[in-house]
Amino acid sequence: MELSKRQETILEIVKHHGPITGTEIAGQLGLSRAALRPDLAILTMSGMLGARPRVGYYCTGKEPTDFIASLLANISVAEAHSQPIVVKESSSVYDAIVSMFIEDVGSLIVVSEGGYLEGIVSRKDLLKAAMGGQGLNKLPTNVVMTRMPNVIVTYPEESVVRAAEKLINQQVDSLPVVVANKVGNEEKFQVIGRFTKTNITRLFVQLAGK
Amino acid sequence: MELSKRQETILEIVKHHGPITGTEIAGQLGLSRAALRPDLAILTMSGMLGARPRVGYYCTGKEPTDFIASLLANISVAEAHSQPIVVKESSSVYDAIVSMFIEDVGSLIVVSEGGYLEGIVSRKDLLKAAMGGQGLNKLPTNVVMTRMPNVIVTYPEESVVRAAEKLINQQVDSLPVVVANKVGNEEKFQVIGRFTKTNITRLFVQLAGK
Repeated sequence: MELSKRQETILEIVKHHGPITGTEIAGQLGLSRAALRPDLAILTMSGMLGARPRVGYYCTGKEPTDFIASLLANISVAEAHSQPIVVKESSSVYDAIVSMFIEDVGSLIVVSEGGYLEGIVSRKDLLKAAMGGQGLNKLPTNVVMTRMPNVIVTYPEESVVRAAEKLINQQVDSLPVVVANKVGNEEKFQVIGRFTKTNITRLFVQLAGK
Repeated sequence: MELSKRQETILEIVKHHGPITGTEIAGQLGLSRAALRPDLAILTMSGMLGARPRVGYYCTGKEPTDFIASLLANISVAEAHSQPIVVKESSSVYDAIVSMFIEDVGSLIVVSEGGYLEGIVSRKDLLKAAMGGQGLNKLPTNVVMTRMPNVIVTYPEESVVRAAEKLINQQVDSLPVVVANKVGNEEKFQVIGRFTKTNITRLFVQLAGK
């Protein structure tokens, strides 16, 4: 967001003299209050200035990107995730590798017979197993996966920003999108999608209007 | 960006009657021109309305996200890329796999003795080689890599949006960041970085103000 010279000047005035009324700002600039209205609207809408009735304008210390922040915070994982690609925990590592190539994904979600989340297996896990050598046909996937409760998950209603933070902070490429279900006394995660850095990159391109 | 009821109404009026002057819009709403100024400022600043002197306001057909688009278009790859992780083209596939685990990256950039871009090798390429089995110690990396001129690259001055489009459209996880150099009669690419979906995800979190 590029500010005009006049908007920059208004910000400076408010920074030094705030809280200050619109009429007082106009006075300092030798302009009418009405002439300043569009500039003040832009500065308050972008979040850089706050306004309090009978008190005046004050600096919030926020940057114009906070405008983007509030927009991004309103996009949920449900609007951006992909279909989950799953394997049964009893599948062999060999079959998992074949699935990964066929589906062309970076990680597979490992589920129990009932379809609940048990773990996640990455290309790195599979490469490590393949380097280990023998018997990939007989090695079950659940031996090489990251297993619950160590799997980082996201939820359809979570914001994409929070999910992106998890991807960065936990250094993973993909999060299972889950819904919690009570099964007997246990809470189990039903897998309804996967959320990846590719989803974020796609969203990024969309936001840029391409 | 959330529009107020009045702003929505103004958009509708301009859609049906534009080009239309501010005074005419005010007349239809039973308001003064001055009272409308902040709304018209917001609608033109966000790019949804255009204004031409002596003609009036017209609809641009743009969405408020175009505001974000212009902001994102101004961020260059130079501001967001990571250090390149490279291997020599004569390295064995075994050494490449070890580098990938040590550096914890999704792909390695393969360079010639002079440090110029020769190819790129992904986890998938290495997994395929590892499945092939024997002699990873003797198999040179340049046999399994994607080689020039088929490597998709980006440049420090390119916008992150354009680079993100390449990642999505070409279905790759990583782009070498290069500078073109004349070497004799040939144009060669000096590798100065790598740009990945992780960089975009990090940027996304930053833009969201976290």
